[in-house]
Amino acid sequence: MEKKGILLVISGFSGAGKGTLVKKLMETYDEYALSVSMTTRAPREGEQEGVHYFFTDRERFEKTIAEDGLIEYAQYCGNYYGTPRAYVESQLARGSNVILEIEMQGALQIKQKIPEALLLFVTPPSAAELERRLVGRGTETPEVIAKRLARAYEESEGMDAYDYIVVNDVLEECVEEVHRLVDAARCEPIRRTEFIKEITEELKGFAKGAE
Amino acid sequence: MEKKGILLVISGFSGAGKGTLVKKLMETYDEYALSVSMTTRAPREGEQEGVHYFFTDRERFEKTIAEDGLIEYAQYCGNYYGTPRAYVESQLARGSNVILEIEMQGALQIKQKIPEALLLFVTPPSAAELERRLVGRGTETPEVIAKRLARAYEESEGMDAYDYIVVNDVLEECVEEVHRLVDAARCEPIRRTEFIKEITEELKGFAKGAE
Repeated sequence: MEKKGILLVISGFSGAGKGTLVKKLMETYDEYALSVSMTTRAPREGEQEGVHYFFTDRERFEKTIAEDGLIEYAQYCGNYYGTPRAYVESQLARGSNVILEIEMQGALQIKQKIPEALLLFVTPPSAAELERRLVGRGTETPEVIAKRLARAYEESEGMDAYDYIVVNDVLEECVEEVHRLVDAARCEPIRRTEFIKEITEELKGFAKGAE
Repeated sequence: MEKKGILLVISGFSGAGKGTLVKKLMETYDEYALSVSMTTRAPREGEQEGVHYFFTDRERFEKTIAEDGLIEYAQYCGNYYGTPRAYVESQLARGSNVILEIEMQGALQIKQKIPEALLLFVTPPSAAELERRLVGRGTETPEVIAKRLARAYEESEGMDAYDYIVVNDVLEECVEEVHRLVDAARCEPIRRTEFIKEITEELKGFAKGAE
């Protein structure tokens, strides 16, 4: 069977616990790697090249875009951010599942370019719980919380474009579920193309031999 | 979350070990039920009504077709065979996963009518292994084996219409894999429609409240 890793695109409501989930998943299993973004923004104190970001300038970033070297990119506050194809592909080739934590529009962009990417949408068990978590952080004003809930409503309309909806209730269970889903996804025909091709060819040989 | 069972449609090459797999799955887990077909053929020695088949006559069978009471049906040797909708739906409603072991064309018919049905295709690890198993049975002539392999080649072209490809190498592992796939399938948006609807409505309420 194919040994290649799976490109795991994780989105979800702000407050759904994606960051903690990804962290715990990486701590629990060896076979996951986090995608490292490329950016034109200046490094901040303590940020390391190749760990937090690949730092570059506008000229080289735009050259990379032109060469189709990014699987998705966007601009924020005058800086480019993108996902370098080469890094993702080398990790996948070594058999690591590469995690990309990214918002909905970027996720759907990736699905179009890379149909075998696995898209997970992380959600709390209910909207009331989402609100509780956002309020519980104690770091955001009621206005910001209201904005995030309004944004969550918009995103809820796009959830069904994802491969799986993951309910993050108990963190440890959710980590196990995500890991099982990645395993299950390996059985989808789109990720068994090599196997299907091989057995079809082999059967064709038998069928011809029998004629 | 939804408690409804999943309609599990199992196809696969002749010789892939579907029958043994289904038997073992039912023995290992309580939550599976086997679909019982309706037929116009006469009961054979030892066959029980409602266990092996629902026996009926042509007139009632055709009435059931007309009332859309079958999720699929076909004729073989002048007799009707079909899957009664009512039985499947009552089992699903009680939370059982209903297993339907059926060939490819019937399976694809069902997927069209019931998009949330889960289609599994069972295959040995290779065509050589398939041949070994068919020969190993010692019950079929070389001509029959050649026909089955030719049929397998035809079917291999349709494998990618299935939700998952299950490689049946070691039986016990395969049973576990099927069970995990059914679990994973519960996270697909098509089987989380209730949840998506509820959280969308709830978020809409929050979004409106914030306006």
